Amino acid sequence: MSDYAKGLEGVTAAETQMSYIDGTAGILEYVGIPIGELGSHSTFEETVFLLWNNRLPTRAELDGFTKDLRARYRLPDGFIDRIRACPQDAQPMHVLRTLVSALALYDKNPNANDVPSAREKGLNILGCTPAIVAAFDRHRRGLDPVAPDSSLSFAENFLYMLNGTKPTPTMARAFDICMILHADHGLNNSTFTARVVISTLSDVYSALTAAIGSLRGPLHGGANEEVMVMLNEIPSVDAAEKYVMDKLERKELIMGFGHRVYKAKDPRASHLQVLAKQLATDTGNQALFEKSNKIEQIMHRERAAKGIYPNVDFYSATTYHCIGLKLDLFTPMFAMSRLAGWTGHIIEQLSDNRLFRPKAKYVGPHNAPYVPIDQRG
Amino acid sequence: MSDYAKGLEGVTAAETQMSYIDGTAGILEYVGIPIGELGSHSTFEETVFLLWNNRLPTRAELDGFTKDLRARYRLPDGFIDRIRACPQDAQPMHVLRTLVSALALYDKNPNANDVPSAREKGLNILGCTPAIVAAFDRHRRGLDPVAPDSSLSFAENFLYMLNGTKPTPTMARAFDICMILHADHGLNNSTFTARVVISTLSDVYSALTAAIGSLRGPLHGGANEEVMVMLNEIPSVDAAEKYVMDKLERKELIMGFGHRVYKAKDPRASHLQVLAKQLATDTGNQALFEKSNKIEQIMHRERAAKGIYPNVDFYSATTYHCIGLKLDLFTPMFAMSRLAGWTGHIIEQLSDNRLFRPKAKYVGPHNAPYVPIDQRG
Repeated sequence: MSDYAKGLEGVTAAETQMSYIDGTAGILEYVGIPIGELGSHSTFEETVFLLWNNRLPTRAELDGFTKDLRARYRLPDGFIDRIRACPQDAQPMHVLRTLVSALALYDKNPNANDVPSAREKGLNILGCTPAIVAAFDRHRRGLDPVAPDSSLSFAENFLYMLNGTKPTPTMARAFDICMILHADHGLNNSTFTARVVISTLSDVYSALTAAIGSLRGPLHGGANEEVMVMLNEIPSVDAAEKYVMDKLERKELIMGFGHRVYKAKDPRASHLQVLAKQLATDTGNQALFEKSNKIEQIMHRERAAKGIYPNVDFYSATTYHCIGLKLDLFTPMFAMSRLAGWTGHIIEQLSDNRLFRPKAKYVGPHNAPYVPIDQRG
Repeated sequence: MSDYAKGLEGVTAAETQMSYIDGTAGILEYVGIPIGELGSHSTFEETVFLLWNNRLPTRAELDGFTKDLRARYRLPDGFIDRIRACPQDAQPMHVLRTLVSALALYDKNPNANDVPSAREKGLNILGCTPAIVAAFDRHRRGLDPVAPDSSLSFAENFLYMLNGTKPTPTMARAFDICMILHADHGLNNSTFTARVVISTLSDVYSALTAAIGSLRGPLHGGANEEVMVMLNEIPSVDAAEKYVMDKLERKELIMGFGHRVYKAKDPRASHLQVLAKQLATDTGNQALFEKSNKIEQIMHRERAAKGIYPNVDFYSATTYHCIGLKLDLFTPMFAMSRLAGWTGHIIEQLSDNRLFRPKAKYVGPHNAPYVPIDQRG
């Protein structure tokens, strides 16, 4: 048995002014505003401003911020060649991590980490990450990249660069809401990673690259892909009961359920559920939504008493599928949104930094001799 | 005032069987063997085996391990083109982070993270990282890469690929000792980063890329570069007194002194000091060594009572300089060695994993309304 908090469960590791989570009541607020309010009324651009400034912008401020972001949609000169040099069968998260890291090579002053510089670099990376994801996806399909359109919102521009056609207002808004809901979430693993890395006074590229690597994991952002894999494995709504019960019997995880912090339904899941239902109807994916809904009902019956409820990944899978995104772009979408939170936390960490340097508990031998090689057993 | 351990100071975050540190007594052991013993008698290859297997190898095991490592000196086909595509003025640590990340694109199964796969990927990255660093340094000098020579040790092969000529036995051994001394050090920030990232069940590339980003920071691995900058700023041994006292007066840091864990002289610094003195004599850098020595004496007089002593970075700067390494390769050298420790910790984490997910203390507002934009003040 260990005498420490494994996984740092229950340990407070940083202060934040950005998101408040009450896992028992199922509450998530960004700077005090309930996530449902933002999902209903805000935009991703406004939400990023909120997270980085701890207040909502005036119209003039929002216009200025949006203009600044749109000016950064374009990749550095020559960068497209780096994307084209990626093997077409490479996985998008590995490509994203590599290419966000590579952006540092095109920055004449990549290590500047005073707060204004960090904010500017974060904005720049946020601005051009959609172009990286979209251009790589087109590259692997054998298609030329689509240049960004700075008259479009962040959400619209991404879908435009991915598909080569402008999205419908419904699709663009659905995607925008996904971006809002995933933007920040306390000290989740990738955000914690970003803060740990920047605490060496490293740089924004290093911290964000590290966070992307963390998010890839199936216990974190990678879970939304695995939810979709599960949904694809279940042939029909009627097959859900046996599938779930068999998994539970074998003590296997049902992806998209349970969360270290929430012991109630994740409020983002509630919001995404409504969105997913509407989109599923609009796009002829009702069966997929009903399968999700059925799984939730079974899991509620079997596991609600243990505090296991749908998390953000569960209905985001259906939502992304209805938007037409390929399975292996689900986690990159999460990353595109969470860049907002990561950058906000980097700014918070730099504003009041203390190097993260915990202790290890040593459980090996002591005072061992260096035995000459020919005397080893 | 905060009611939490900022920077996780004093918090136990993981168990390890690899390195034991007694910061008060100035003791560092790898698997129970004092670091000075290893620096005197072991090799980097043997030390890596020790860290990954928690015991010294037999001769047959060491031969097998060495052969396996040497078979991995060569970069994947086409990888040299990625190095050539890096701007020549890019900083080596940003290049290293980007290219270690890019190795994942050439792996058909990059996400495998069962322990044998993680070990194999770690070995592969350790094996070919010297070729990345050397080839980029030659690229920026306008020189063709030198193919690795699998008849050479890890240390010899790196210096050979960097310079195009085989190092003298003295140089190779000095470099080998540096690699041994930097290989592992408890839950330092980059090692902690690697464990945090792999705990999402992400992958070895993500975890090692993240660790490299952490190490770049001046509060961590970047410090050895800053020590050299300081030594270059001091024109002579006689000028050291005024330089140090002026800095202390202005409450500025003297790079290479003080450590979160050690309140005595870092045993690695003691070992490096002897090595640096010998190398400085051999290479006509006596004045540099004497400057370092003088700074240590002044700092001892002024700061030993506060527990501030030389750390590993202090004499590694002089050592690397005498080996002929450029300033901005100092931190990549640290990374090349620490890859051993990072991989060992990744293996430990995967063997008994629990997701790192600490809590944040929320210090912002609650129940804030979403005020429509035209009503904002």
